[in-house]
Amino acid sequence: MSSPPALLVIDVQQGLDDPGRGARNNPDAEARIASLLAAWRARDWPRVHVRHCSLEPGSKLRPGLPGNAWKPEAAPLDGEAEITKTTNSAFVGTDLDARLRAQGVDTLVVAGLTTDHCVSASVRSASDLGFAVTLVTDACAAFERLGYDGEHYGGEQIHRVNLVSLDGEFCRLRDTAAVLAEIDDFTEPES
Amino acid sequence: MSSPPALLVIDVQQGLDDPGRGARNNPDAEARIASLLAAWRARDWPRVHVRHCSLEPGSKLRPGLPGNAWKPEAAPLDGEAEITKTTNSAFVGTDLDARLRAQGVDTLVVAGLTTDHCVSASVRSASDLGFAVTLVTDACAAFERLGYDGEHYGGEQIHRVNLVSLDGEFCRLRDTAAVLAEIDDFTEPES
Repeated sequence: MSSPPALLVIDVQQGLDDPGRGARNNPDAEARIASLLAAWRARDWPRVHVRHCSLEPGSKLRPGLPGNAWKPEAAPLDGEAEITKTTNSAFVGTDLDARLRAQGVDTLVVAGLTTDHCVSASVRSASDLGFAVTLVTDACAAFERLGYDGEHYGGEQIHRVNLVSLDGEFCRLRDTAAVLAEIDDFTEPES
Repeated sequence: MSSPPALLVIDVQQGLDDPGRGARNNPDAEARIASLLAAWRARDWPRVHVRHCSLEPGSKLRPGLPGNAWKPEAAPLDGEAEITKTTNSAFVGTDLDARLRAQGVDTLVVAGLTTDHCVSASVRSASDLGFAVTLVTDACAAFERLGYDGEHYGGEQIHRVNLVSLDGEFCRLRDTAAVLAEIDDFTEPES
């Protein structure tokens, strides 16, 4: 019998509130992550908290800086797995793949920050490594960016296009309400 | 002394012309890939051809089908490295990382199909594995998609937003003309 799905929560850290990042979409993403964590905790299903420990000199996410700390909505409880990474994908340079396989986990539900950087990179890795992935559309978020073409790209546009590119190829997309509504069907393997 | 940059050409295969994929941007991407290959061949710099050998029943890219064949602009010459993959990232389930490191390659120039699937996945992996990556903006391309939100997303929009999300975090962006104009500066490591 396979494990229930693991909830993978990526980079929900204080440094992501740095105003230098500009405007973000999905301001309620953290609240939704808290509700996902509560559902997983109520069932004692696997939870993995991924923490970015940047090696870049100017990053707010360097270890030891206030920005490296968890946001309260996503802080791990005692006994919950924590993975530390220095790259974008939570599967590169970490033992996450081995840890999940050792627990029999083959299905992941993913949420966190940011949609187009570490979330997309981690979902792509997970899918290529053979996990069945559900990405929670309203429990992740993206920041606005100035494009190489001189155009402004809003956080909502970046978020949506990145989800469209992942959809079907790397994961399925569900919002938090749908995940919670169907949560007890997750233990059945997907067809 | 480090190796010259390797040119990584991803999934330029006949099956990508399947009309079922819809409209694509950058119709001249293959011609630009041919010009990049010519420049790398003239210098005898490393070239790696990545071929997708899908395991999915309905895919046009399954081994043995006509769609698995290279497009003529990107067909390998004798002696050029070929990597076969079944996943999106050219670095998952292959020996590409080991092969490049064995040659002393630490810098990659990437082109191919499609921007948002295998190109983005491969660029993300390469960056996380420590390679310095230049992605050639007009030598890759994306297809239109119907979004999970019911909206239509054109190939050009998907292409651009995916590049914006990669830019600076996973790679630098250059067009073919810029790569060819600065090609002989590539042997100097980036600062």
